Amino acid sequence: MSGSNQLRQSVVLKRRPSGEPSPNDFEIVQDLIPEPKTGEVVTRTLWLSIDPYMRGRLREEQTYAVAIQIGEVMTGESVGEVVASADPRFAVGDIVVGSRGWQTHSVTAGDRLVKVPAGVHSSTYLGVLGMPGATAYAGVTEIIKPQKGQTIVVSAASGAVGSVAGQLARRAGARVVGIAGGSEKCLWVQDSLGFDDCVDHRSMDLARELHAACPNGIDGYFENVGGHVQATVFGQLNRHARVAMCGMVSQYNEAEFPPGPNLGFVVGKSVMIQGFIVSDRPERLPEWRKLAGPWIADGSLVYREDIHEGLDQAPAALAGILGGRNFGKLLVRVGHHKG
Amino acid sequence: MSGSNQLRQSVVLKRRPSGEPSPNDFEIVQDLIPEPKTGEVVTRTLWLSIDPYMRGRLREEQTYAVAIQIGEVMTGESVGEVVASADPRFAVGDIVVGSRGWQTHSVTAGDRLVKVPAGVHSSTYLGVLGMPGATAYAGVTEIIKPQKGQTIVVSAASGAVGSVAGQLARRAGARVVGIAGGSEKCLWVQDSLGFDDCVDHRSMDLARELHAACPNGIDGYFENVGGHVQATVFGQLNRHARVAMCGMVSQYNEAEFPPGPNLGFVVGKSVMIQGFIVSDRPERLPEWRKLAGPWIADGSLVYREDIHEGLDQAPAALAGILGGRNFGKLLVRVGHHKG
Repeated sequence: MSGSNQLRQSVVLKRRPSGEPSPNDFEIVQDLIPEPKTGEVVTRTLWLSIDPYMRGRLREEQTYAVAIQIGEVMTGESVGEVVASADPRFAVGDIVVGSRGWQTHSVTAGDRLVKVPAGVHSSTYLGVLGMPGATAYAGVTEIIKPQKGQTIVVSAASGAVGSVAGQLARRAGARVVGIAGGSEKCLWVQDSLGFDDCVDHRSMDLARELHAACPNGIDGYFENVGGHVQATVFGQLNRHARVAMCGMVSQYNEAEFPPGPNLGFVVGKSVMIQGFIVSDRPERLPEWRKLAGPWIADGSLVYREDIHEGLDQAPAALAGILGGRNFGKLLVRVGHHKG
Repeated sequence: MSGSNQLRQSVVLKRRPSGEPSPNDFEIVQDLIPEPKTGEVVTRTLWLSIDPYMRGRLREEQTYAVAIQIGEVMTGESVGEVVASADPRFAVGDIVVGSRGWQTHSVTAGDRLVKVPAGVHSSTYLGVLGMPGATAYAGVTEIIKPQKGQTIVVSAASGAVGSVAGQLARRAGARVVGIAGGSEKCLWVQDSLGFDDCVDHRSMDLARELHAACPNGIDGYFENVGGHVQATVFGQLNRHARVAMCGMVSQYNEAEFPPGPNLGFVVGKSVMIQGFIVSDRPERLPEWRKLAGPWIADGSLVYREDIHEGLDQAPAALAGILGGRNFGKLLVRVGHHKG
């Protein structure tokens, strides 16, 4: 139960990070858990989702999002348990997902919450069945459109988005090659996710190794990282290749972005490069949950979670995902399910 | 009539150009006009088309085309008059268009020639009603898809492709802003082609002038030039902007291509960038001729030709188009219509 005599903790932005975010860029503040007004729901946080895009929200200049202001609670998707409700659609004990912020307790308009069905691991609604999974689904089905026999490359292949993107391209009959950081991730991408091959981006000769894994060139690329990985993949694209630009995490900590590829190959090879953000097509998320839910239940869609314990670990977790130090969908456990 | 006792002249590649092509990179050779074998047609050249893509054919390394070899006749689209035919579909006196090379007379398989209808200025089948016009048509209708009220920018706006692209975007109800080199071209783009505005890319502050011409940002870009024009336009794209990558003529003479734009904006603004070549969709050319023929006849589609006289002027004309020294569709007149 909520009550005005109970405290909640919130992570607020103390100063804008320079380079990799540090826990010192944030601070934890306490206040009383509010009572819900009409239409609002108070929830106790179980899981926070940590995603690379969050680094962009910490910048003063924004492209598609709204900047977090100094002193403001850090925003993000999370799962919580309803502890008080002034929205008749939600009852105490319901498990819900929504954009609820880095807090132990949140007050949210019921309109902005979605119930997690009974029998579903609620954390999956932040990862494989959440925004990252739906992002992979949108990028693969609307942009890359893999065909049987094509070669599709996925960067950040062991991550929350890349792991789903590659499995979807394989379901469509493509040869799928991952790019990931380190041999442990590469082994998992091949052995557990079933990618046809995986190349370590820390290799001394990424171009040669990628070519060995993609002897017929690259027909589609799901881009999550940018930088030298992007340059190497772009150099091996086939005519009419299709590139889904989901993210460029390698530069999210940079103050100034480095030059990119000369686009002569786009003209010469009739390449298509498409940036996208799944929130432009909100209907894809429920569609994806309906489609992929059974695949999670029957084990045919594989996922992995990397869990940090405690709200105070959220800033370090964000720094870790930007440095590629996570392994699978990165989550912070803020509270435990009861009973 | 053709005959084995008549001579023809051909422009052959003498050496691969370094930087801007020079007439000294080519030479004119003579041989006897061949007799047509079964299925072949001998034509006397009237018009050669000079197009920026030809520079690429002179490189050793190729992306989508086949390199011209040293000693080989330079290839290109041209219009000719049939002087001997061993294909029953063609008669002496017919005017035809096809890929016929830089020659006073060519021998071509009839299958590869298209008749120019009576009453049509045959040179238009190389420009506004030819490959450049169809390229503009494909790029605007399939990639940019301009909507009423959007702002569309076209570079090389006074050229054979850009002039058509901008007029098509205006027909679709968009605000159209051209970019061209010099005030004379800009005036023509506005006054004769009817673009809403035109900016001189030689301006000391292109970004400011472009922004003044596009106060609501840029929703679509028809790219012909690359370089600093591309960088400036990309900096002013709106969310969901669509870019048709037709060419990057500013770098065609370069041995090494310079770095390009960091693609963070593609992710952040969900931009789509699509390279294309109209020969991938050969059906678009007859479709375009059918659609635009009446617009040429009634004067509602405006075009301009820049005519050089004599086969020996073809190499200098090619150098000129790469340097932006043409004004309108660049043609070389090799022979005159009879009668």
